[in-house]
Amino acid sequence: MSSSLYNLWMTAAIDQAKKSWDEGGIPIGSVLVSPKAEAIGNIGGSIVARGHNERVQTGDPTAHAEMVAVRNAGRRRDWKDLVLVSTLSPCSMCAGTAILYKIPVVVIGENRTFQGAEDWMARNGIELHVLTDTRAIALMERLQKERAELWAEDIGE
Amino acid sequence: MSSSLYNLWMTAAIDQAKKSWDEGGIPIGSVLVSPKAEAIGNIGGSIVARGHNERVQTGDPTAHAEMVAVRNAGRRRDWKDLVLVSTLSPCSMCAGTAILYKIPVVVIGENRTFQGAEDWMARNGIELHVLTDTRAIALMERLQKERAELWAEDIGE
Repeated sequence: MSSSLYNLWMTAAIDQAKKSWDEGGIPIGSVLVSPKAEAIGNIGGSIVARGHNERVQTGDPTAHAEMVAVRNAGRRRDWKDLVLVSTLSPCSMCAGTAILYKIPVVVIGENRTFQGAEDWMARNGIELHVLTDTRAIALMERLQKERAELWAEDIGE
Repeated sequence: MSSSLYNLWMTAAIDQAKKSWDEGGIPIGSVLVSPKAEAIGNIGGSIVARGHNERVQTGDPTAHAEMVAVRNAGRRRDWKDLVLVSTLSPCSMCAGTAILYKIPVVVIGENRTFQGAEDWMARNGIELHVLTDTRAIALMERLQKERAELWAEDIGE
């Protein structure tokens, strides 16, 4: 998989993050991608699920972006063929979900504004790619500056 | 906190597990308890949320019992005062959620039929109590015998 593909998927995740921010929520987005679909030229079909943080919008404390993407992906047995893409380094809940379902690759927008459970994913054999995407950083910096309390709640602080 | 309290809470979690089995789902149940409410004599108010595995019932792959209990607890800032009770040793997703929200104590029905991410919770300072409850073991043994495929899907196998 090439870095241009990662950037393409990250753009889709960032669109989700922007959507959440526009709704008054936490600007973190995620997509689940099937590189197999990509490989056979089905670009449109390569994103199997999208999600954005819905904790503020729905009052569900488990509704981090990655969790919503997994939820939207529904019951399936092909997790080992998927890539989880998130604008932000996944927290312990979202990392634990990737480990549970043996998702082999996680593409991360950035880990400058928050360092998630990357070590734990790596120890469980997950391949990580951190893009240090300036768009993703800008979204989180605005959140932490303008709505610090909301962010603290998101990460149990 | 005494072991008789743990058993009382576990009974509530087992009731949730039985409810799920009766619905055709995975027989795992969970409750979130506020020992502070218990301490001031408010036994009825001590269980702040209940949940059972709803993956089969709703098609949501994140709907493990503990996740549903956390979801039902809603947005709150008192996670550090709560106890998470589950009939089964929590998987990496549910363990990661306890770590995210800094839930300090996890009471586990049993870890004979499935060993979850207990090490990871312990490394993150969570106090674990494994009851080895024969009721919880019986529920899981029946699942693994009668619906092995459903169980494999639940743990990403």
